[in-house]
Amino acid sequence: MSRRIRLVVQYDGTDYVGWQLQQNGVSVQQRLNEAAFDVTGEAIRLHGSGRTDSGVHAKAQVAHFDTTARMPADKFAIAMNMRLPRDIRVLYSEEAPEGFHARFSAKNKTYRYTVQTGLHADVFTRNTALHIHTPLDFEKMRRAAADALGEHDFCAFMSAGTAMERTVRTVTRSEWTADGKYLYYDVSANGFLYNMVRILVGTMLEIGSGRLPQDAIACALNSGVRADAGATAPPQGLTLMRVQYDDFDTDEVLKR
Amino acid sequence: MSRRIRLVVQYDGTDYVGWQLQQNGVSVQQRLNEAAFDVTGEAIRLHGSGRTDSGVHAKAQVAHFDTTARMPADKFAIAMNMRLPRDIRVLYSEEAPEGFHARFSAKNKTYRYTVQTGLHADVFTRNTALHIHTPLDFEKMRRAAADALGEHDFCAFMSAGTAMERTVRTVTRSEWTADGKYLYYDVSANGFLYNMVRILVGTMLEIGSGRLPQDAIACALNSGVRADAGATAPPQGLTLMRVQYDDFDTDEVLKR
Repeated sequence: MSRRIRLVVQYDGTDYVGWQLQQNGVSVQQRLNEAAFDVTGEAIRLHGSGRTDSGVHAKAQVAHFDTTARMPADKFAIAMNMRLPRDIRVLYSEEAPEGFHARFSAKNKTYRYTVQTGLHADVFTRNTALHIHTPLDFEKMRRAAADALGEHDFCAFMSAGTAMERTVRTVTRSEWTADGKYLYYDVSANGFLYNMVRILVGTMLEIGSGRLPQDAIACALNSGVRADAGATAPPQGLTLMRVQYDDFDTDEVLKR
Repeated sequence: MSRRIRLVVQYDGTDYVGWQLQQNGVSVQQRLNEAAFDVTGEAIRLHGSGRTDSGVHAKAQVAHFDTTARMPADKFAIAMNMRLPRDIRVLYSEEAPEGFHARFSAKNKTYRYTVQTGLHADVFTRNTALHIHTPLDFEKMRRAAADALGEHDFCAFMSAGTAMERTVRTVTRSEWTADGKYLYYDVSANGFLYNMVRILVGTMLEIGSGRLPQDAIACALNSGVRADAGATAPPQGLTLMRVQYDDFDTDEVLKR
């Protein structure tokens, strides 16, 4: 009897080519597939809630796989962690309900992008924040973030060359907060296009530095032209924070 | 004309054999000596406020060196950072006043030891916190920490085989705080013996887990016997947070 197991996975993406299996290096998914193989003796292929790029992190990624192994579902986390490198952890495992799919059942996702200001890059966040030492107008960035709220066609905020039939998404949270030298951009939506968060952040950083006008986000949403948005921000500042389903929320798992 | 330059240095100690120059690997001091040589063309040997072990970090370490280089004192930080790896940063440089010595002039130091509780080790703090998944009685640890306050002979809290004439130190802060899954031990003193913080923490962790009685710190302070204290806690949880002098405080630099 095959069961579907769902996992909450945390990883530091610094040393990986990204979530997705790749020919050119080791991916997070590959390491998890290998650990699941070691535990079950079966050729396992995980399905994640979505891809993350090389250098992008996850505080809470969701994945599922099917297995006939008879191990209690909650033990997969511990058994897989014994075989995983220290920069990947399975925080939680359980049997998924009928019909659950890590990607297709996802209702909402939240990402955080972290910027560190100040003259020198902090050594403890060198792999998890983008260091910017030039002045930024934080109020401008906050106002620009609000322009992304709501239902829009985000095709200007998608890396060129991506094929995607439907590019309308609903953003339910889009805001910057500051804590000392750190600036955090938190964004939630029912889905994200490829590089959407990094292009939003890149555009807002150019608004904050004065290279783009205050209404650049609104203009690019209107025109739908990629060139009207800013550059794609570097990957290391980006972290997948939360994935929500009708019956499951990674924030509930992280609280335990 | 030789000047004395003082630096505030931050480092992630994970990949180093420690602060001090060693035969068996690369030290933080070696990398800084090399960067100072590249900048000045002189054979520079830095003096730190004290050693840190392999795997121990510094949010703010102080060091000084003498040079005849004519560069403005505040430019050494930027020039050295261009030559340093990303896990070592010079946060600040200035000309030191007459008679300043990073080690002998230090009046107070503060360390933080970080413990992460919970079933699985968090990937983002795997190198900067000690993960403990077994239950700890936090109240017992807090009460034990208070026993270290004040002037005591800390010879029981010094690694065996260390030669040290005077082992009396005055601890002005010794407390645990909790933030979610993280427990922080903050300790300030006019000086620390070799491994003193890690042995204090190791003892308190054994008090918290019930392996040692509540009064183990007080008893070891009384007896002066190393075996009465607990094991030396692992290095990765330890960070040098602050060094204070009569005329200089690293906290003032970090605020800028």
